[in-house]
Amino acid sequence: MNGVGHVSLVGAGPGDPGLLTRRAIARLRAADLVLYDALIDNRILKYARRAQRFFVGKRAGRHAMAQTAIQALMIRAARRGRRVVRLKGGDPFVFGRGGEEALALQQAGIAYDVVPGVTSAVAAPALAGIPVTHRGVASAFLVVSGHEEEAFSTAIGQLEPNGLTVVVLMGLGRSAAIACRLIDRGWSRGTPAAVIVDASNPEQQVWRGTIDQLASDSVVIDGRGPGTIVIGDVVAVGQREVGIENSEVGMRARIPNSRF
Amino acid sequence: MNGVGHVSLVGAGPGDPGLLTRRAIARLRAADLVLYDALIDNRILKYARRAQRFFVGKRAGRHAMAQTAIQALMIRAARRGRRVVRLKGGDPFVFGRGGEEALALQQAGIAYDVVPGVTSAVAAPALAGIPVTHRGVASAFLVVSGHEEEAFSTAIGQLEPNGLTVVVLMGLGRSAAIACRLIDRGWSRGTPAAVIVDASNPEQQVWRGTIDQLASDSVVIDGRGPGTIVIGDVVAVGQREVGIENSEVGMRARIPNSRF
Repeated sequence: MNGVGHVSLVGAGPGDPGLLTRRAIARLRAADLVLYDALIDNRILKYARRAQRFFVGKRAGRHAMAQTAIQALMIRAARRGRRVVRLKGGDPFVFGRGGEEALALQQAGIAYDVVPGVTSAVAAPALAGIPVTHRGVASAFLVVSGHEEEAFSTAIGQLEPNGLTVVVLMGLGRSAAIACRLIDRGWSRGTPAAVIVDASNPEQQVWRGTIDQLASDSVVIDGRGPGTIVIGDVVAVGQREVGIENSEVGMRARIPNSRF
Repeated sequence: MNGVGHVSLVGAGPGDPGLLTRRAIARLRAADLVLYDALIDNRILKYARRAQRFFVGKRAGRHAMAQTAIQALMIRAARRGRRVVRLKGGDPFVFGRGGEEALALQQAGIAYDVVPGVTSAVAAPALAGIPVTHRGVASAFLVVSGHEEEAFSTAIGQLEPNGLTVVVLMGLGRSAAIACRLIDRGWSRGTPAAVIVDASNPEQQVWRGTIDQLASDSVVIDGRGPGTIVIGDVVAVGQREVGIENSEVGMRARIPNSRF
């Protein structure tokens, strides 16, 4: 690329470096500058050996760098001939504001590419043994952010109760409100639900229950990591035949002696 | 793993080997036997140097191996101490029947793990410059299979017209019927739509238009590869400011001199 600046919007996957793509690793290795969000593992940042690394995300109680400031930083660095990686958890276009960054880069005339990542919307349930689709159980799934009450209610308000799998990202702090909203909308109180925290990491925890339990705030999970909530009959699929409890499915889903 | 058999349900991503995860590559390298579906690239299979490779998918006009036969084959091989990779396009739990295979393995008492992959539901739009979510445009997305009329209609029937992004996998052959169904349900005829074929591969093609055009079967794309249909205002996001036509966004989304 000989001094011509470039930006890559790169998905880092759910957390475990083994779920990085080859291309994400190649972009990190070639990077001069990495702008990374919260929840990006140090083992992932280590691939960017040559790069300056700037944390631009939110930390508990502190504001993130403004979106416009991040975009200005990327553009300025690229104009100086630097290879920039904008590193985001999961996939850059799933609630990652990647679309806004891509538009800003287009408008500024900066060359860029997008490296899709493994999204937690699918991977967190999978690593807890829960398929988001399953023949005869769910033939569609909805992915929604739990962060904003209004956007969540609008999306959920459309659905017939218990019609498909609902995956809620960024909803951990509002899980009781989310479950109440579903019950208000007519979802059965016994609808299976799961909460996966720190998916793919050694600290992964899985809670399983019903939306009724979720609504009563009885979820006992240390929720400091990122959380994914899955709601629908698919949650019961992995348990139907074998009666696995809580986080055991998540444990079983790893090979103990794997180094990857 | 010393002769103890094991099965990995592995997502291969949308096609380009650069979108394989590190862990998928590690599982392929260690495999004794790979059972793979249609649309898995030869460059991906080459990682499985030591393995026997069996094609178990559908080929045009010919039936796939029965699901129960695939499961029996995996279980038998694992019982003989072999390391089996069940390799699927995209993510194994997004319409991949991975859930059924996981259940069969559980019931048979076979050790297994799941390696999530980059799903085409998110990556195909992204590689065409389309974010499935975008602030102020779409704060949720629905992923549905277009393969079965009834399941599709049930999922779509729930939605308020033009309320969120709809991503249809396996719907290429039924795209006109899919668009008609949406129009019948009250979606605006001018709703932006895109069709991405062979996402992430050198042959990637992107068609952009409206659901009205999609309904009139005016999509001129050589649809032999796998296709993803995206419907909703997000399709116009990448074009809003720069007026990019057809497949140019897809082209722009690659770095010409990248080897990954």
